[in-house]
Amino acid sequence: MEIPRQRLQKYLGLKREFAGKNYINLNPIQRGGILTDEARRAIVEFGDGYSVCDWCPPKTPRLDKIKRPPIADFYEDLAKFLGMDVARVVTRCREAKFIAFRMLGRPGDYVVIDSLAHYSTYLAAELAGLRIKEVPHGGYPEFRIEVDAYEEKIREVVRETGKPPALALLTHVDYLYGNLNDAAKVAEICHEQGVPLLLNAAYTAGVMPIDGGKLGVDILVGSGHKSWAASAPTGILAMTEEMAEKILRPSSIRGDWSGRSFPAKELPLLGCTVMGAPLITLMASFPTVVERVQRWDEEVKKARFLVEQLERIEGTRQLGVKPKQHTLIHMESQGLYRVSQTHKRKGFFLYDELKKRRIVGIQPGLTKHFKLNTYGLTWDEVRHVAESFLEIAEKYGLKTS
Amino acid sequence: MEIPRQRLQKYLGLKREFAGKNYINLNPIQRGGILTDEARRAIVEFGDGYSVCDWCPPKTPRLDKIKRPPIADFYEDLAKFLGMDVARVVTRCREAKFIAFRMLGRPGDYVVIDSLAHYSTYLAAELAGLRIKEVPHGGYPEFRIEVDAYEEKIREVVRETGKPPALALLTHVDYLYGNLNDAAKVAEICHEQGVPLLLNAAYTAGVMPIDGGKLGVDILVGSGHKSWAASAPTGILAMTEEMAEKILRPSSIRGDWSGRSFPAKELPLLGCTVMGAPLITLMASFPTVVERVQRWDEEVKKARFLVEQLERIEGTRQLGVKPKQHTLIHMESQGLYRVSQTHKRKGFFLYDELKKRRIVGIQPGLTKHFKLNTYGLTWDEVRHVAESFLEIAEKYGLKTS
Repeated sequence: MEIPRQRLQKYLGLKREFAGKNYINLNPIQRGGILTDEARRAIVEFGDGYSVCDWCPPKTPRLDKIKRPPIADFYEDLAKFLGMDVARVVTRCREAKFIAFRMLGRPGDYVVIDSLAHYSTYLAAELAGLRIKEVPHGGYPEFRIEVDAYEEKIREVVRETGKPPALALLTHVDYLYGNLNDAAKVAEICHEQGVPLLLNAAYTAGVMPIDGGKLGVDILVGSGHKSWAASAPTGILAMTEEMAEKILRPSSIRGDWSGRSFPAKELPLLGCTVMGAPLITLMASFPTVVERVQRWDEEVKKARFLVEQLERIEGTRQLGVKPKQHTLIHMESQGLYRVSQTHKRKGFFLYDELKKRRIVGIQPGLTKHFKLNTYGLTWDEVRHVAESFLEIAEKYGLKTS
Repeated sequence: MEIPRQRLQKYLGLKREFAGKNYINLNPIQRGGILTDEARRAIVEFGDGYSVCDWCPPKTPRLDKIKRPPIADFYEDLAKFLGMDVARVVTRCREAKFIAFRMLGRPGDYVVIDSLAHYSTYLAAELAGLRIKEVPHGGYPEFRIEVDAYEEKIREVVRETGKPPALALLTHVDYLYGNLNDAAKVAEICHEQGVPLLLNAAYTAGVMPIDGGKLGVDILVGSGHKSWAASAPTGILAMTEEMAEKILRPSSIRGDWSGRSFPAKELPLLGCTVMGAPLITLMASFPTVVERVQRWDEEVKKARFLVEQLERIEGTRQLGVKPKQHTLIHMESQGLYRVSQTHKRKGFFLYDELKKRRIVGIQPGLTKHFKLNTYGLTWDEVRHVAESFLEIAEKYGLKTS
């Protein structure tokens, strides 16, 4: 119960070393979540807990019905922007997946997923009591998901259980290699067999243009803190009208003594979700996001440029499909790994050398395989990253072409 | 897909009318969630998405293992402060309840709850597939939960299903009347029958001193944005060691093709939970919270003073148990209601009159029954609220004693 005053000191003046303009941060999960200036102003304004609830409508007390700030409008605009009918902001992309799994499946049902899905996809299925059937990838060096195999995997489920899977999930761009998958094709395969498709767009929606309607997906989930210049935790759950009816089911529980019931509340959201600051950052950054996805081609150019430069280092190659169609990059470097084996700091030499050059975000200690993300860097910054790597390689005697 | 530029204007320059020092905000859910200055500084520093993940430990990549910022230490201090063994920060108090229900119960199992539980308690049970059995309250005007009836309700479940309920839940202070329930007594009853007790301390932990160990509860949940001077969404899930083993179960799913598995991840948290700003506000405000709970008696005095003053108005009484043991107050006013019936603004006259006096947060339109919360108001502010009500009553010809 008693916490010594001295122990509390550490919570005062919390600082983030890598915030702001001091460093070029290549952390693969962080590039798309850097706040806009608008969001930075709004988060202070709406920092207090329940800050968005000042004008909660008494007759329909629900986050998505609030008009001041314009949350109701935002949900509409968000759905429209993604080419879907209905959108909700939930606490995390993983929660959006859990909600879909929980509401569309019954314990023991299957969901067919790609084998490069984020770990949270597996956990969301597990928490919902679903079994998974994985669609294979082609392995090294491309790790390409065999999207045609969705058909076979769905058939397998039918053979095994006598019915199709509750749904299928495709990771639009995976977190390991940054490969972009053909969502339209998978949607077509799934629909031929009557299976709805959830597209996990955590790495795509918010940074590249996505039209879920055109892709033909039934559910599209995204991550505000990953790709929408928003604070954590924010997830996006967008759906067709048909799916919304199944997923956003109203509560039907009733008190056995009191008779209390809550039919105005959406069951899987547990009523309301993100009642404050992170939702506001998502809204404040939205105009920028709508505009920035149009500049996606330029972002991909920067990623390809950096890959080209890094591959000049002896024994270094990009893994995943080439050329890059996304800014998340997985590099393999036998060269840098060789240096690490005789360096007194082992693999940390790379981290040290990059940090000296004001570059952070690559996992400290890694050299043989490491990931980075160029999203939103200026050309000058990308060039600085490229030159730094080449300089470090040369410093340690690696050949550069 | 296309959002007209003009439609995006509304997301720029988002302002909160009731923020800051302009108004005395009596909103019952908002008093305990106003950020400290420390938290206001920290939220800007850690506004970017995934801002706390700079130093995620590669071998145990989990929020509760992060040492910079000191999240690992914080979880320990948080558990200790609440008199529990283990704590996790989750996205909302309602999620904490869902997690406990989901992990301790099986679909069809019962949970025994008090009949003044928050609606999200009902939804959490419903989402976890549990049935509820309600412990009655005594009705008007005290609405006192009949805590002794936990025993009978547990026996009812045993008779009906052949086994005890998965758990019981007690709302420490309810959101309707602000009644404080005897948690120690309910814990004793539950334990005599081998049933774990979850205490929903959303309105108590963070504002008043709570020692879950001393109360003997097995699980204690709380709300950062409601009572810990933190941004939404933040929930607290604190447990005994024994409960933690059952609730924080590691993931055990395995990829059927890839063999991938994630035993380092806690299943019900879906891995990580609040990866950014709100968690940081909770940490930054923690030293203040540790100190402020010691001043709870003074807070109760202010609430009692205001009740006493409001009851001077003709036909006006406090509902719920008297005298107040909490700052959440439910008033019934036949007097103000009578005024509303002939006023051209109907019940909104009260809102208008209060707002003129820089007082907000009572639901616009209500007069016969309304709720307010005095937590954290200065004595001057409490007096101003009291005087304003009396002034308004007199203005409309109500007697004041």
